[in-house]
Amino acid sequence: MKDFKIAPSILSADLARLGDDVAKVIESGADWVHFDVMDNHYVPNLTFGPMVCKALRDYGITAPIDVHLMVKPVDALIPQFAKAGADYITFHPEASEHLDRSLQLIKDNGCKAGLVLNPGTSLECLEYVMDRLDVILLMSVNPGFGGQKFIDTTLDKARKVRQLIDASGRDIRLEIDGGVNVANIKEIAEAGVDTFVAGSAIFNSGDYKGSIDQMRQQLSQVK
Amino acid sequence: MKDFKIAPSILSADLARLGDDVAKVIESGADWVHFDVMDNHYVPNLTFGPMVCKALRDYGITAPIDVHLMVKPVDALIPQFAKAGADYITFHPEASEHLDRSLQLIKDNGCKAGLVLNPGTSLECLEYVMDRLDVILLMSVNPGFGGQKFIDTTLDKARKVRQLIDASGRDIRLEIDGGVNVANIKEIAEAGVDTFVAGSAIFNSGDYKGSIDQMRQQLSQVK
Amino acid sequence: MKDFKIAPSILSADLARLGDDVAKVIESGADWVHFDVMDNHYVPNLTFGPMVCKALRDYGITAPIDVHLMVKPVDALIPQFAKAGADYITFHPEASEHLDRSLQLIKDNGCKAGLVLNPGTSLECLEYVMDRLDVILLMSVNPGFGGQKFIDTTLDKARKVRQLIDASGRDIRLEIDGGVNVANIKEIAEAGVDTFVAGSAIFNSGDYKGSIDQMRQQLSQVK
Amino acid sequence: MKDFKIAPSILSADLARLGDDVAKVIESGADWVHFDVMDNHYVPNLTFGPMVCKALRDYGITAPIDVHLMVKPVDALIPQFAKAGADYITFHPEASEHLDRSLQLIKDNGCKAGLVLNPGTSLECLEYVMDRLDVILLMSVNPGFGGQKFIDTTLDKARKVRQLIDASGRDIRLEIDGGVNVANIKEIAEAGVDTFVAGSAIFNSGDYKGSIDQMRQQLSQVK
Amino acid sequence: MKDFKIAPSILSADLARLGDDVAKVIESGADWVHFDVMDNHYVPNLTFGPMVCKALRDYGITAPIDVHLMVKPVDALIPQFAKAGADYITFHPEASEHLDRSLQLIKDNGCKAGLVLNPGTSLECLEYVMDRLDVILLMSVNPGFGGQKFIDTTLDKARKVRQLIDASGRDIRLEIDGGVNVANIKEIAEAGVDTFVAGSAIFNSGDYKGSIDQMRQQLSQVK
Amino acid sequence: MKDFKIAPSILSADLARLGDDVAKVIESGADWVHFDVMDNHYVPNLTFGPMVCKALRDYGITAPIDVHLMVKPVDALIPQFAKAGADYITFHPEASEHLDRSLQLIKDNGCKAGLVLNPGTSLECLEYVMDRLDVILLMSVNPGFGGQKFIDTTLDKARKVRQLIDASGRDIRLEIDGGVNVANIKEIAEAGVDTFVAGSAIFNSGDYKGSIDQMRQQLSQVK
Repeated sequence: MKDFKIAPSILSADLARLGDDVAKVIESGADWVHFDVMDNHYVPNLTFGPMVCKALRDYGITAPIDVHLMVKPVDALIPQFAKAGADYITFHPEASEHLDRSLQLIKDNGCKAGLVLNPGTSLECLEYVMDRLDVILLMSVNPGFGGQKFIDTTLDKARKVRQLIDASGRDIRLEIDGGVNVANIKEIAEAGVDTFVAGSAIFNSGDYKGSIDQMRQQLSQVK
Repeated sequence: MKDFKIAPSILSADLARLGDDVAKVIESGADWVHFDVMDNHYVPNLTFGPMVCKALRDYGITAPIDVHLMVKPVDALIPQFAKAGADYITFHPEASEHLDRSLQLIKDNGCKAGLVLNPGTSLECLEYVMDRLDVILLMSVNPGFGGQKFIDTTLDKARKVRQLIDASGRDIRLEIDGGVNVANIKEIAEAGVDTFVAGSAIFNSGDYKGSIDQMRQQLSQVK
Repeated sequence: MKDFKIAPSILSADLARLGDDVAKVIESGADWVHFDVMDNHYVPNLTFGPMVCKALRDYGITAPIDVHLMVKPVDALIPQFAKAGADYITFHPEASEHLDRSLQLIKDNGCKAGLVLNPGTSLECLEYVMDRLDVILLMSVNPGFGGQKFIDTTLDKARKVRQLIDASGRDIRLEIDGGVNVANIKEIAEAGVDTFVAGSAIFNSGDYKGSIDQMRQQLSQVK
Repeated sequence: MKDFKIAPSILSADLARLGDDVAKVIESGADWVHFDVMDNHYVPNLTFGPMVCKALRDYGITAPIDVHLMVKPVDALIPQFAKAGADYITFHPEASEHLDRSLQLIKDNGCKAGLVLNPGTSLECLEYVMDRLDVILLMSVNPGFGGQKFIDTTLDKARKVRQLIDASGRDIRLEIDGGVNVANIKEIAEAGVDTFVAGSAIFNSGDYKGSIDQMRQQLSQVK
Repeated sequence: MKDFKIAPSILSADLARLGDDVAKVIESGADWVHFDVMDNHYVPNLTFGPMVCKALRDYGITAPIDVHLMVKPVDALIPQFAKAGADYITFHPEASEHLDRSLQLIKDNGCKAGLVLNPGTSLECLEYVMDRLDVILLMSVNPGFGGQKFIDTTLDKARKVRQLIDASGRDIRLEIDGGVNVANIKEIAEAGVDTFVAGSAIFNSGDYKGSIDQMRQQLSQVK
Repeated sequence: MKDFKIAPSILSADLARLGDDVAKVIESGADWVHFDVMDNHYVPNLTFGPMVCKALRDYGITAPIDVHLMVKPVDALIPQFAKAGADYITFHPEASEHLDRSLQLIKDNGCKAGLVLNPGTSLECLEYVMDRLDVILLMSVNPGFGGQKFIDTTLDKARKVRQLIDASGRDIRLEIDGGVNVANIKEIAEAGVDTFVAGSAIFNSGDYKGSIDQMRQQLSQVK
């Protein structure tokens, strides 16, 4: 089986017991922690910042933390999250006028770097930064809130990005975020995605291990 | 003894165990929960937003939550925090071009309203909104980070605001935030302050009840 | 009787028949046309700009047009409105970092200049520009929409501004905008106001002449 | 003959007699009302907003109103214009960081949705939102003012967009705005455009019916 | 005689021979170099930044460099100018929402700190930062360009600031900028000013030493 | 030999002796003066503006001045630089929402116009403005500071832009900026570049003529 990663989004976790909830979801088989940072400017919601990330590390969470910046501008937060324990830092091309510089800044701070594409964002922004990327994150909902429905046209976009990645010969993960669940994860994987953010589908399931196991079961059938 | 309130700032709490830590500090004698919201625009830090506030209510915290908005602009977050369980919502005059409108919006959402004055901010902004105010919060450090040292000139400002409140005949709390500790709380109270935000002085003390008891002991000697 | 001016706000006029409606209100005894410019940035509404002002002049309206800029920034629109036929141009101090420069720009374009104070705005901003002012406009509602209720504390502010104007010995009109009607216009005038913006009280009355006559009747009793 | 639509831009109408002028142009054979909203931020001019749109509906105009938002940001005005009677709402991709979200918001408010491309804007932004679009509007002048000359390279762009629409198999109108007149409308239609905004060519012609009839005459010869 | 300082503004110097021109004006008796930094955002002009300041130091200029920031925001440039050799750094209160923080930042970078008041700016902003100030700079023209005429009402403002400084008992210089020349310098000094920015009056005089000597001659007669 | 141009960037010149240094580099064989304008908003540095450009012309520099605007927004500075003596004015597509309008504005002010592409910027923005362009400038470092290392992937981008230019049949220069030196100039030229910005490679070489001669020597070997 391909090296699939499941990355529960803490947007749907119990934020008053975040350490316990994240520890539990990791013990239940999750691979990464997906950390949704919103600043009430790039998106109309404000979530949590570097101090909450550091608190997870201090609690003892050792899984990779995948920081998704839904903020504008992005550069000032990059070193703060690197110091707070982030492994991956991704941001939206609309939020930085200097894509190459922001990606390099992430790398210079010792993290893996990626871009996030909104449902309506086209692929041209990837062309001249492919060699800086460790991950490409496709939004299958409009960012800002949890619990939204998967936008189907994202599957076609995923197939095109998979081709770009394969053509580049580089080791770049293809991640998807928004409306992923047991029912659609197989189809999404078959479109070329290897990393799956899932929020409510895991945290609201009542059975973290059960829902993650079902996702893996689906993934095991991917051709 | 005057009706003093002690409001621990969760900026210094354990953010991975926030429900437990806040419950413990309330059981240890704290009156309010001080909730520091930063958006990386009004101040160079991003902390936490309405979902974290709601998580505290869902956890079972019933103490008043005192939301201090270090964000710009302010209006969109007001109904979000009201729905998330805030009792008090305060903001900075530099962050709203329509002070009266923002204060009224807080009231229309069922919360108590206040203004926050930075160390360098003068008192003129209070004059035409005194009848909208339930609290005036004086910053005794520059907002953005915990653990800073109390700026002494704030004592003189507190005395002047105390006079303005008394002259108005209104029931307005006078709150202070930044560098408050056992050693200076009595002097601050004697300058007319009745509500005390304390972060590291409580959460980093190792003994929440001990440090709160010592603060109350100091306050009991206020003339 | 003092030289009172009644300035109907076209925010409440029939915008599909603006020329006719404004002509009718002027024939009914109104003195000025109050022109509320909103840009969806300084206030959350967008109304009309210089082309609509010019259309009124082209229609044949000769009464003074009193342009109230609820926009940010302000400077670029000043020459546009001057060319479009404005007589007075006023703006909010929160909307220009260079008060003196913007006021001078209005004068250099051949118009009379003024500042507008929101309900919560204090009077300090007036001190060093009194000699540039032809009018001071006090908002007795928060700007953005018609049909709001008069904020009573504005009366006290009007009295203070009246004193400042009298002390300056200058010929500066004191105007009020928001919730003015037949029932309160006398009390407002007695607080020192000489120019009255009225929107719904006139345009929604069904009888422009009747409502303006009643206002004048009230004003004739001012001590 | 193809289903061509002529949409006079009220930017060139008599704004002091807007209801009458729009009624007259519709009676003269125009199909839609093109409503140019400028906020002095996305473009250096401020025109008119939702209240003027509503006034046209209250006057009795029943023709489709095609609202072209030259504003930034766009989302807050969308429900305001939907309530004010808009049928179509279009905006510029440069003015929203969340294209898909803004398009969906237009649809959720019961209107038809579209994107507007400036003369220099390329076509990539269309790819992942084609299924959200009811109209694509090509600017053949730079937006901000009426009376400019048609930019010829827009014809080539129109041909390419026509191919994209045809390839999509969707029912999307292709509209053009800027410098359209009797002399060039046939050539523009032959490039694939089916909806024509015309301002000064109609309103400044002195004979609305005559100029619209001539345009239709030209369109009847389109191959 | 009082300790008067003359600070030629390099805005009027020969920018292609800046080192020579500044050296010459210092040899001609000037005390400080006044360095006008404009960013085309706080004012509608762009002048020069830290690299030009450093070039003056590398050239061998040892006189105090008095950096006047007409930029917004201000904080990021402060350490850059400190490293580039600035002695004084001043900024406008409209350009920083955290006056106390920005002033402290200047001091933490080893420079002397000050605020600059536009012609229309009132004095309230000084009250709670007097103990952070080494200089108060009053603009007697609106900032943005050289060669403007002195605004007379600044004299009255200077007298009031002089009283505030004297009352504070602190060692704070009172500086003025805009339209200062041989004809008015004595009257300005008698209003309490001790530091004089002069641009065109010196650099356009054709005789640096002559004009500075005449200014000193005038200053020697100040009572 | 092709018509190669060498354009030393004054970012690396002696800014205290700018006239002399520029005159010397022109006498040493340079073709153009490259003038890097930064406003501390589009990039985190502030350099110099129109007055410095004019000072070079007043000094007697007659070589073409190639103004590279790293500012946002761009339009207001265009006429200022045209008046100050600029020959070429280029800007970044991220910095103007109206590419076509800004390019036309440069032409209307009598200058040659161009776009600048950051390392991560893709080529789509060129398509509909090719007929407005006199120069395309590719950044081979991220703009903001001198002395950075050439980003190799720019060579591939240069080849693609060369094809676009040749396909257009237009007379458009292809310029590169960042890390150009004697060692790599030949390879860059072979990728299709004909205009070379070089800062530290010339100004820090200690021998302007020597380094320019070596560059020309390399260029003479281009196939």
